[in-house]
Amino acid sequence: MANKSPQVQSISDAFRVNPDGFDLAKVDPDATPVGPRSKTEAAADMVKIGAELDALQEALYAEGTGGGQRRVLLVLQGMDTSGKGGTIRHVAGLVNPQGLRIASFKKPTRAELRHDFLWRIRRQVPHPGYIGVFDRSHYEDVLVARVDNLVPSTEWRRRYRQINAFEAELAGQGVTVVKCFLHISPERQRERLIARLEDPLKRWKYNPGDLEVRSKFSRYQLAYQDALVKCSTPDAPWFVVPSDRKWYRNWVVASVLLETLRDLTPRYPEPTYDPQVELARLREADPLR
Amino acid sequence: MANKSPQVQSISDAFRVNPDGFDLAKVDPDATPVGPRSKTEAAADMVKIGAELDALQEALYAEGTGGGQRRVLLVLQGMDTSGKGGTIRHVAGLVNPQGLRIASFKKPTRAELRHDFLWRIRRQVPHPGYIGVFDRSHYEDVLVARVDNLVPSTEWRRRYRQINAFEAELAGQGVTVVKCFLHISPERQRERLIARLEDPLKRWKYNPGDLEVRSKFSRYQLAYQDALVKCSTPDAPWFVVPSDRKWYRNWVVASVLLETLRDLTPRYPEPTYDPQVELARLREADPLR
Repeated sequence: MANKSPQVQSISDAFRVNPDGFDLAKVDPDATPVGPRSKTEAAADMVKIGAELDALQEALYAEGTGGGQRRVLLVLQGMDTSGKGGTIRHVAGLVNPQGLRIASFKKPTRAELRHDFLWRIRRQVPHPGYIGVFDRSHYEDVLVARVDNLVPSTEWRRRYRQINAFEAELAGQGVTVVKCFLHISPERQRERLIARLEDPLKRWKYNPGDLEVRSKFSRYQLAYQDALVKCSTPDAPWFVVPSDRKWYRNWVVASVLLETLRDLTPRYPEPTYDPQVELARLREADPLR
Repeated sequence: MANKSPQVQSISDAFRVNPDGFDLAKVDPDATPVGPRSKTEAAADMVKIGAELDALQEALYAEGTGGGQRRVLLVLQGMDTSGKGGTIRHVAGLVNPQGLRIASFKKPTRAELRHDFLWRIRRQVPHPGYIGVFDRSHYEDVLVARVDNLVPSTEWRRRYRQINAFEAELAGQGVTVVKCFLHISPERQRERLIARLEDPLKRWKYNPGDLEVRSKFSRYQLAYQDALVKCSTPDAPWFVVPSDRKWYRNWVVASVLLETLRDLTPRYPEPTYDPQVELARLREADPLR
């Protein structure tokens, strides 16, 4: 990656945005700078990642039942066909669905537009113990809102600070925010749009407006560049995930999520009762024996 | 099963409650009346079930994006340790988490108690295209509410009709309701409670109140008997799932869910655009080439 630190200490470090001098145009969407060299290698790695993620997620959930406030919010952003849905299937699909809360943010409804842009987002913040996944997010309000001039520039310019304040507030509540930009090339997008149109089982994923959005590809890249630089904070870092190869994209997001949960080291709560007393009740005083 | 029909046409038929003469006390929680004879056989079957479920769920989701109103609601009920959580992990975990909406109903909060008992339930009904899973449900309001006298008997007696009316209303909206009672023996519950207490990683799942509930096991069975008989309707059938063996429980619920989705035969929506026109736009008029 153009922006990697000289000494990579973790997989996440290789993809974390360092706002100083970051240039999205220099990041290759087809790069595979660390990790598996092939789809086969990645698949084997995903099995191990899945087992560890699953165990950590259960501990996080258990911690939440004991009064812990911590939780994780994975934000996914990217152009059409970059693979937000595929990432949810293959990465979020690695853990127990009971501990997941997935929220998709589409074009705001009229009811949603009557509120501040963060209103609908706040309602979907995961509860303690959960891993929340946002399929698109409040970042749309500095992306499509900017590219399509849905609000005056004074308005969207103000939102970067509002987003940073909101994410800092989340951090204060125990929410670890991890944001992944699924970075795809216009060439790969073209291939995937054609594939959607050619396969009758994929046509529902396409709509003619996708080509309008595609025609603004470079303006979106500039909007992403600003969002990535202005909203990469220690509380809520952005990761740029090379997404031209689906297997690599899934491996990177899974690895970043795994390292996030490892850093949290969720803890099973201490029982608030005496297990030996309860065992004795069941073994010696069980009315149903 | 004590209540199986003379000619079993489907797996579901073997477990569906026929209210005429149904007697829960005659259903063996350890039975394996149809299907795999071992855990190994079940595991192999689950791989096939998973692949078909996943494909059907994607079609249902696609249908929903095209304006279809249909959706599925799987209601899970059962005594502690009967495996509601395990069923969600192993059955709901077979499909794309993006198409799932899981809701857990715990002891009602004060805010929830200020409303009608169905109020919090209505808020969690899955949207079109989704598979919703209820971990406990409105049935708690004729189970614990009855056993613990939380409301006068005139009140809980009225609720069976209210539940049937509510579920008929859901059916009218396109919601296919499938209700599974995970039937476990008191002996197996005892073993599992002991296992929870002996394993430090499982102690968080236990609380001393579980033994109070256990001491009312037979009263709960009577309350389930009534709920199963009074609320088994063509719109929203109950299935009694022998749950003393986890692998069999998972296989039965997965099979019932699969047959439900097969019966729905969800359809990919017809595109509202001309795919050939769009392909031409991408191939010949793409500004990004």
